[in-house]
Amino acid sequence: MYKCNSSRLQESIEQFSQFGATVNGGVTRLSLSKEDLLARDYFCECCKALGMEIVIDDMANIYAILPGKKDFPPIVMGSHLDSVEKGGKFDGVLGVLTALEAIKTLKENDIELDIPLMIVNFTNEEGARFDPAMMSSGVISSKFNKDKMMQSVDKNGITFKKALQASGYEGEQENRLTEALAYIELHIEQGPVLEAKQLEIGVVEGVLGMICYEITITGESNHAGTTPMSMRKDPMIVASRIMTYLHEQLGKVDDELVYTFGRMNVSPNIHTVIPNKVVFTIDSRHQDPQVMQKVEDILKGLPLEIKGCRIQPLKLWGRDTVFFDKFICDEVEKSCQNFGYSSHRMFSGAGHDAQYIASFIPSAMIFVPSIAGKSHCEEEETTFEDCAKGADVLLETVLTLQTKFSVGESYTLN
Amino acid sequence: MYKCNSSRLQESIEQFSQFGATVNGGVTRLSLSKEDLLARDYFCECCKALGMEIVIDDMANIYAILPGKKDFPPIVMGSHLDSVEKGGKFDGVLGVLTALEAIKTLKENDIELDIPLMIVNFTNEEGARFDPAMMSSGVISSKFNKDKMMQSVDKNGITFKKALQASGYEGEQENRLTEALAYIELHIEQGPVLEAKQLEIGVVEGVLGMICYEITITGESNHAGTTPMSMRKDPMIVASRIMTYLHEQLGKVDDELVYTFGRMNVSPNIHTVIPNKVVFTIDSRHQDPQVMQKVEDILKGLPLEIKGCRIQPLKLWGRDTVFFDKFICDEVEKSCQNFGYSSHRMFSGAGHDAQYIASFIPSAMIFVPSIAGKSHCEEEETTFEDCAKGADVLLETVLTLQTKFSVGESYTLN
Repeated sequence: MYKCNSSRLQESIEQFSQFGATVNGGVTRLSLSKEDLLARDYFCECCKALGMEIVIDDMANIYAILPGKKDFPPIVMGSHLDSVEKGGKFDGVLGVLTALEAIKTLKENDIELDIPLMIVNFTNEEGARFDPAMMSSGVISSKFNKDKMMQSVDKNGITFKKALQASGYEGEQENRLTEALAYIELHIEQGPVLEAKQLEIGVVEGVLGMICYEITITGESNHAGTTPMSMRKDPMIVASRIMTYLHEQLGKVDDELVYTFGRMNVSPNIHTVIPNKVVFTIDSRHQDPQVMQKVEDILKGLPLEIKGCRIQPLKLWGRDTVFFDKFICDEVEKSCQNFGYSSHRMFSGAGHDAQYIASFIPSAMIFVPSIAGKSHCEEEETTFEDCAKGADVLLETVLTLQTKFSVGESYTLN
Repeated sequence: MYKCNSSRLQESIEQFSQFGATVNGGVTRLSLSKEDLLARDYFCECCKALGMEIVIDDMANIYAILPGKKDFPPIVMGSHLDSVEKGGKFDGVLGVLTALEAIKTLKENDIELDIPLMIVNFTNEEGARFDPAMMSSGVISSKFNKDKMMQSVDKNGITFKKALQASGYEGEQENRLTEALAYIELHIEQGPVLEAKQLEIGVVEGVLGMICYEITITGESNHAGTTPMSMRKDPMIVASRIMTYLHEQLGKVDDELVYTFGRMNVSPNIHTVIPNKVVFTIDSRHQDPQVMQKVEDILKGLPLEIKGCRIQPLKLWGRDTVFFDKFICDEVEKSCQNFGYSSHRMFSGAGHDAQYIASFIPSAMIFVPSIAGKSHCEEEETTFEDCAKGADVLLETVLTLQTKFSVGESYTLN
């Protein structure tokens, strides 16, 4: 077992957090921005210094390859270097830097592996500059149409295509990741569970299926002072009743189900006017497709009309649960046990590049605790100690897998 | 009994609706705008043609006086010529034009009264250009500070003072209305009650007391996918529960109580993020101060915290119920009976100049039905037949009052 160098990892995290540092200790490193390009340049330098070869594909995904002694497809680690606006210094970048630390640890211990290792930096995971999120892992997994992605526009009217061409990171389509023995992405949890349970590592078995509905309730605007209650068609009162009802009903479905009324817009939104329209969203996630079906049944079962107001549920989107590779998850868990790190098998409620990569490469994720569950904000925090434990588990898992793969041990997906 | 000339009144309404006509049959005649000034000029012309004297005060309120044979304070009719943006062609202006029609009817019947009559046009009743509403009736009733009003700014940065000075309608403070025997304001109902009850005239006994609270619920933003329900502090779920609770509780207080959740803002208002703050308003109105007290008790009795979210009710404002003069109300009702017009004693849920004028002049209002209860919109509609019935009642009431007052019949204020 090799332990990573905790203080070297800390230095590395602090170094990268300078690219786009905000005054409040966070990071703004939007995809293909000047800050992102500086981080990419520095990442490539670090990899080259370790004797890794850099390859770039047509979506500006960076692949750094440490050759193996045998001709195998690589074992891949990584995540993304971009951040949201005023994000934190761990989301994404930690998956890249723990991978880098794993390679450094191998190097300083003069370990040469049979199987090549690869670190990947996926472009525009956050979708904060160019919609959608996980754009480039999505393109190489055939989830998204590349031509359409090229037309995605940032708030200044710059297309992804233009930003890509100007970046110096537009590579060849033939360089896309197509084959690998495994993909392991380390990431902060972005939720409060590990911290609350006082656990050190999350063994991520998959990404929750989710649906997002928009419920539109149409009533009739009238003067707040002159319209008797009995003559109103008030969509706000109906909306509050529906939310209360959904909260009660969904609360009974499953303890692990999550649901959120995140967005609500009221028209005309004037205190002295009865609204004529209320639109709100409900986002709901669970790993079990049967549970998600129950949620949809409840949403579709809403009455068409309450108190003269029309109720229209519209499914904005949904995605099925992605199950990660059981064999790799088991290896991650064993690695935790080897180090004596407490761990917990869990699903990710947030989306990650791994969920698309899992469609063609056996994949898994490793979570480290997020303090107070915060992410996508400057307060995002994970202790450097926990980061290092994650790096230990990542390296140990990679080493075990490479040993098993190099002796030809076969395994079955899921 | 004298009946007004229905078709002449219709012509007059149609004529005035040209000042600021919108393409959809409504009116935009913001206070002291070019359109308002044209309407004012034409109103003054009409009054002068009837032998009335025009006097203007320092708030640009216009007073047109038809002299009486005896030296009495006048009986005043009127309302306002300004409208909201994309308002209707009846709100306000109808009170001025029915008064004008009443005078025309007197004139064509060669009736000379002992008591002077006055038509008033109050400046900026709507508050649509310059906040607050009922600005100028408020100033002459000492409800508002004139200097402060002068600083009120429209959306183009023009102060009321500047608009006033440029209007040509800035008169003398000494011309303010200070004494009158009665003030009678005819207005569209702006609510659905008369139409629903198939009644022709509303005898308005007062203006409902109201309170407006803003309820702020503060929780904690977190990722919609990664935060278990039990670890959330979700102000949206709390808001829906509070609204449902208030709806249930307030529904029991009194059948005539009205309440409206008109404005709600959610932060950060993103479908994948648990909100950290929800702010909504509740506007509630009723004529009985004891009922309003119960409403306030319910609002103040909300818990300080629910499910980790802080609940802060803030009273934005309140106003007491204004009771109009019973003697005048009775005369209005009798006038309805004389014509065989069906009528209904009621309170106004909306604010009107009369509610301020009532503080120093015995006042009452006459409502005519609003089709579908609509107002402050281009669809605002009242049949010309109903307008004429209102004018009949207005004139009849004025004639009865002037007879009673001129023979010295005394009456007590409420």
